[in-house]
Amino acid sequence: MSANNRKKGQKRYLLSEEDIPRSWYNIQAEMPVKPAPLLNPATKQPLKPDDLFPIFAEELCRQELNQTDVWIEIPEDVRDCYKFYRSTPLVRAYGLEEALGTPAKIYFKNESVSPMGSHKLNSAIPQAYYCKKEGVKNVTTETGAGQWGASLAYAARMFGLEAAVYQVKISYEQKPYRKSIMQTFGAQVTPSPSMSTRAGKDILTASPNHQGSLGTAISEAIELATTTPNCKYTLGSVLSHVSLHQTVIGLEAEKQMAMAGDYPDIVIACFGGGSNFGGLAFPFMRHNFSGERNTRFIAAEPESCPKLTRGVFTYDFGDEAGYTPLLPMYTLGHNFRPANIHAGGLRYHGAGVIVSQLLKDGWMEAVDIPQLESFEAGVLFAKAEGIIPAPESCHAIAATIREALKCKETGEEKTILFNLSGHGLIDMASYDKFLSGDLQNYTISDEEISENISNSNRK
Amino acid sequence: MSANNRKKGQKRYLLSEEDIPRSWYNIQAEMPVKPAPLLNPATKQPLKPDDLFPIFAEELCRQELNQTDVWIEIPEDVRDCYKFYRSTPLVRAYGLEEALGTPAKIYFKNESVSPMGSHKLNSAIPQAYYCKKEGVKNVTTETGAGQWGASLAYAARMFGLEAAVYQVKISYEQKPYRKSIMQTFGAQVTPSPSMSTRAGKDILTASPNHQGSLGTAISEAIELATTTPNCKYTLGSVLSHVSLHQTVIGLEAEKQMAMAGDYPDIVIACFGGGSNFGGLAFPFMRHNFSGERNTRFIAAEPESCPKLTRGVFTYDFGDEAGYTPLLPMYTLGHNFRPANIHAGGLRYHGAGVIVSQLLKDGWMEAVDIPQLESFEAGVLFAKAEGIIPAPESCHAIAATIREALKCKETGEEKTILFNLSGHGLIDMASYDKFLSGDLQNYTISDEEISENISNSNRK
Repeated sequence: MSANNRKKGQKRYLLSEEDIPRSWYNIQAEMPVKPAPLLNPATKQPLKPDDLFPIFAEELCRQELNQTDVWIEIPEDVRDCYKFYRSTPLVRAYGLEEALGTPAKIYFKNESVSPMGSHKLNSAIPQAYYCKKEGVKNVTTETGAGQWGASLAYAARMFGLEAAVYQVKISYEQKPYRKSIMQTFGAQVTPSPSMSTRAGKDILTASPNHQGSLGTAISEAIELATTTPNCKYTLGSVLSHVSLHQTVIGLEAEKQMAMAGDYPDIVIACFGGGSNFGGLAFPFMRHNFSGERNTRFIAAEPESCPKLTRGVFTYDFGDEAGYTPLLPMYTLGHNFRPANIHAGGLRYHGAGVIVSQLLKDGWMEAVDIPQLESFEAGVLFAKAEGIIPAPESCHAIAATIREALKCKETGEEKTILFNLSGHGLIDMASYDKFLSGDLQNYTISDEEISENISNSNRK
Repeated sequence: MSANNRKKGQKRYLLSEEDIPRSWYNIQAEMPVKPAPLLNPATKQPLKPDDLFPIFAEELCRQELNQTDVWIEIPEDVRDCYKFYRSTPLVRAYGLEEALGTPAKIYFKNESVSPMGSHKLNSAIPQAYYCKKEGVKNVTTETGAGQWGASLAYAARMFGLEAAVYQVKISYEQKPYRKSIMQTFGAQVTPSPSMSTRAGKDILTASPNHQGSLGTAISEAIELATTTPNCKYTLGSVLSHVSLHQTVIGLEAEKQMAMAGDYPDIVIACFGGGSNFGGLAFPFMRHNFSGERNTRFIAAEPESCPKLTRGVFTYDFGDEAGYTPLLPMYTLGHNFRPANIHAGGLRYHGAGVIVSQLLKDGWMEAVDIPQLESFEAGVLFAKAEGIIPAPESCHAIAATIREALKCKETGEEKTILFNLSGHGLIDMASYDKFLSGDLQNYTISDEEISENISNSNRK
């Protein structure tokens, strides 16, 4: 930032406690075309909430399939916990604007200020809350980079639950400190695939050097939950109830943009399963549904895991072993093995059903970002704004930079809002590799994609 | 936290931008007994500001020796940068209170929310600002754990300065990610002692396996600054102008305690050179000077580096090579080699001159904390409050727990305020070692202390 920029200041907008949202926004109730039903894989019949009761807390199952209520009240205990770190700042990124020399106005919602360093806590708290309320004693989950696992470990601790986390093996090795964080909160952490479950054993038998993916870790966590008494599974993204909880981000951002006297022309977030994207985008998208606004929504996924830009829309499993319901979604096939990129939270084969329907119906767009472009964007942002972004968030920043540079060409003063889903302080080993030139891009051919999808279909 | 505690909520107090302080509090102007003068080591005469001009930005030299002005205005550009992360929250720690079963009311000031994760940015910003304003192009500094180095690297970047950081070798190795953070901001980082300076060469010649200390790194950074054109040195603690900048912490906390309808009976901070301690304590201490209040102030230092509890009050150098002025302070001797504890920011032989005078005159107390007790306190705090504290801050938490447990014995409802100077997300390798039982305590005998002090005197 130059002296000139410092004079303008880097403006932060914060809400008072009173203005922290009291309800989540349930976009399913207002979508012009509702998502197709989830299917019970055994019967191929539309899923009812009680089909999910063996896996999730009951209230979460009802939220998952609720296509009626536009607003769902945030329980007071959950809202009290949100106050530990919310509202998160909306920041006008003068430093980044200046570094790019763009006439665009760039804002970001800074979810990295949560004590666990990412937006994941927004859903970990209510998931742990509902589990506790329903008498559950143990929770299981998967985690990639570890942001979700750390958040669930902390939320479980807050509500007096025991937590067992399956962490994707490659991330377990790339980011050992996230494991230590989970262990500090008392969680049990296992690299996945492991020999502790049937699903893990099958995967390792077929591929002894399997490095894991969110799909494998989900299988193991579901299996542990369904075979352990008084235990439920919790998921960090993909499902509709997770995006529902994350709408606290966009609802706050809407009020904060109004404080800034502005409204976004473009809303951008990185994309793994869809929860930070939906969390920011859905509350703004409702004004597109009503015709009142015409905002563009862009999901930024990694080039190496391109389900939105190059996947197919079909019914597929959410996990590698096929334990989940069949989800109508854009997918690369549930046994897709993503390259070992450092954005562990984006290494997932499918997209949530809501986002998939919205993309199909043209309410949003998607772009894919090469790994090197993502880290270049992250370092530029760090230097300009002083916050080291998570490798996942770097994808949103890269997409933002692309749009801001288009504005520079055309001279348009568009307002861009992106989600800084988390900080990268635990990911410095990845930055080290990038700075020393040891990272690469991973592309994937059309043939590989088609082959994987048909293989997954055969399973 | 139990359900009961969650109902009470974990209360955070934040100030509006308007209420962020406009001046720093210069305690030197109000101390009943002013610190003895700093001495020019060559002439043994009291130091004048221009004696320091070759080392520091001129305005910082004037602030260093200013014993007249009670309030020093915060430049508008600095205040604009403070707004990137301030006010920091004052938090009522219900979770910790409940975990301890104490009737004490525990508050902490959460300086870990700064983008660099600690209070250090509060002084890095003004130091970089004054350097820039005076036409400096390059800044050098030392860093222990790396919190100060990361903050200076970022502040230098903000103001368009080049930064060179000497990081204490043991910390460079224990906490490699902090080096990566500094490098991400474009700083040059060298483990100290190094062969790049005369001071470093001398130290390594005498002790080839020297693991470094803040004292050695300061010598190297000063030498580089004084032998490089257009380059100034900056210091992260010890000196009076650093504590001055940090008073933004205590001035905010005073207003926030008033919002909570409370006032501290005890104020606690960890102690390396004194800047986070002074930053929180000095604004409250002025009400003790005036007789209006009778708060206790406790500095928590590591057992292995006990200058306040077991050092001597004498004139000594601030660095190993003897490049600094002679400072009247509690010291273990400027060539003291602290044990390789993981609280790298506390591995320093001396105390700032203000704090030394205040301790001598009975305005404050000091306690020393064994390494294992500090990490036990940190893990308890993390589980209760969801924030993993820096190993340095763990010392303040341990001292807080001691006082809170005394209250439990006596039934007194004292109000305790401590400084959470930083988070420990970059220090997870240290937590790993603690959790696996690989850490130990380090004690030091009276004989070793006396011998070191007399050796230092001979030098």
